[in-house]
Amino acid sequence: MTGVLYDRVALIGLGLIGSSLAHVIRREKLAKTIAGHARSAETRETARRIGLVDEIHESAAKAVKDADLVILCTPLGAYGKLAEEIGPRLKAGATVSDVGSVKGAVVRDVGPHMPANVHFIPGHPVAGTEQSGPESGFAELFTNRWCILTPLPDSDAAAVARLEKFWRASGSNVEKMNPDHHDMVLAITSHLPHLIAYNIVATAADIEDVTNSEVIKFSAGGFRDFTRIAASDPTMWRDVFLNNKDAVLDTLGRFSEDLSVLQRAIRWGDGETLFNLFTRSREIRRSIIAAGQETAAPDFGRRPDTPSPREAGRGRGPREGAGG
Amino acid sequence: MTGVLYDRVALIGLGLIGSSLAHVIRREKLAKTIAGHARSAETRETARRIGLVDEIHESAAKAVKDADLVILCTPLGAYGKLAEEIGPRLKAGATVSDVGSVKGAVVRDVGPHMPANVHFIPGHPVAGTEQSGPESGFAELFTNRWCILTPLPDSDAAAVARLEKFWRASGSNVEKMNPDHHDMVLAITSHLPHLIAYNIVATAADIEDVTNSEVIKFSAGGFRDFTRIAASDPTMWRDVFLNNKDAVLDTLGRFSEDLSVLQRAIRWGDGETLFNLFTRSREIRRSIIAAGQETAAPDFGRRPDTPSPREAGRGRGPREGAGG
Repeated sequence: MTGVLYDRVALIGLGLIGSSLAHVIRREKLAKTIAGHARSAETRETARRIGLVDEIHESAAKAVKDADLVILCTPLGAYGKLAEEIGPRLKAGATVSDVGSVKGAVVRDVGPHMPANVHFIPGHPVAGTEQSGPESGFAELFTNRWCILTPLPDSDAAAVARLEKFWRASGSNVEKMNPDHHDMVLAITSHLPHLIAYNIVATAADIEDVTNSEVIKFSAGGFRDFTRIAASDPTMWRDVFLNNKDAVLDTLGRFSEDLSVLQRAIRWGDGETLFNLFTRSREIRRSIIAAGQETAAPDFGRRPDTPSPREAGRGRGPREGAGG
Repeated sequence: MTGVLYDRVALIGLGLIGSSLAHVIRREKLAKTIAGHARSAETRETARRIGLVDEIHESAAKAVKDADLVILCTPLGAYGKLAEEIGPRLKAGATVSDVGSVKGAVVRDVGPHMPANVHFIPGHPVAGTEQSGPESGFAELFTNRWCILTPLPDSDAAAVARLEKFWRASGSNVEKMNPDHHDMVLAITSHLPHLIAYNIVATAADIEDVTNSEVIKFSAGGFRDFTRIAASDPTMWRDVFLNNKDAVLDTLGRFSEDLSVLQRAIRWGDGETLFNLFTRSREIRRSIIAAGQETAAPDFGRRPDTPSPREAGRGRGPREGAGG
């Protein structure tokens, strides 16, 4: 047990990440008091009902009062205005961090509003599910995942070390890098995959020759894998793409180039190019499994929620299929 | 229990689908004898060692002798030659089917070699995992999945009904459609998703500014979801793309058009277009879950293979994250 790292923590935003932080802070007793803020009355009401945090504030400025650690957990588009609002109310010596999926834009939007006597250390836990809202959080979300911190050149080393300790206590591994590199790494590992997934779901929904009911029925052929991340929060993802434009357009350009090569190989019946490219991909998945970032069970270890009567009572549940 | 539907079944090819068929035929006692053929000596040896089928034949022609049902379970590219080889050895009145992911090409390649006294009924179980080989099969693979049959205009109704009964007994739902429609439906629900997944894995592997080790480490941001289907069998998938060229190029053209719209929205900061498109996708995933083709558990219900000591012994295992 790490023990209390910050007497008072303020979580600004109570969606999947904010609520998961509340759970893990409590489980690990990393703070004495957790204050929470959510813009929507409905979210505040739900948070109150499930006892998510110790105090719920309608005003972000009031939520950060006397807080030793403030974490912005809203979609990125709200950061600038929030920073302007809370800046003057921050406690001297407080640490301000965030969980946003883009870091250059956070430095740009939040940095100017931070008083000189506050430690501003942007962060990004690379973790999540396709679900959102204050009831979607759980304490294990960060276990074995990576949290990236992007301290600024003049960040106080002791404040960074304490924040690092906080994330490790929440179950994460921690890596530090500069904001621009973070934004390029995440463009390829997260932002482009989400864009592609959203896009293929739209393409499938619009195709005239195939009904939506057929797309749904036969989705086990591979399509359904894409729908998971395409079910992620639309506001959050709109803001990611608006705030990481250059890196996303760069990786998207590369993706489209590579796709043209495959397209040409299919058109000209070039089986060798296809085979060679398809062979490379297995190794990367093996490495991801070896690094503990993925399960080795076939089909992600999917289990159907309602096994057919035929299967009930068997020792091993049916594994669902995808492929073909 | 359905009981014996075909006295003797020959499985030509003993990979994921062939070996899963062997398991389910035995579990449901759908045949008295299962004969198997595999081209590779290694596969035959493995099948023998695990007792997968009753007889293993080095020659496909010998495997189909006296068989009442013959199912081609090899990659599509091998069908033509196999059909030529087994055609003259088929038992009068036998049913010949297959499990290939393309149906027009099967009619084209196999049809001409089928004697008039044989029932040729192409089929495709829309099921699979990213794993391959004779040890990857399991009897539950087809449970609650869809098997598509594409009978020809002159197919014998009783033979089609018996094959349908066979697939239902193996746990599948059955739908019938014509081969061309099958190929368009699968192009969007399976072939395009696989192509996109293979492509993004290649793009990520080649990007110079981000190391492969970073791609692996931070893959929980979304990328890892794509690596599952991109780990599928390269030979099988090469053959799918070579044999469903027109439908794949059609859907790929639509996908690229749609992607250009997103690209433009990002470049011009058009958040409304992004938000509206991202909002549509959730409904499709909900429908897939409601149709029993996907689990409702967050993150596919993934479980890490080796929970950290912190988690061991808890009632609820940690759920792994993806997103952000």
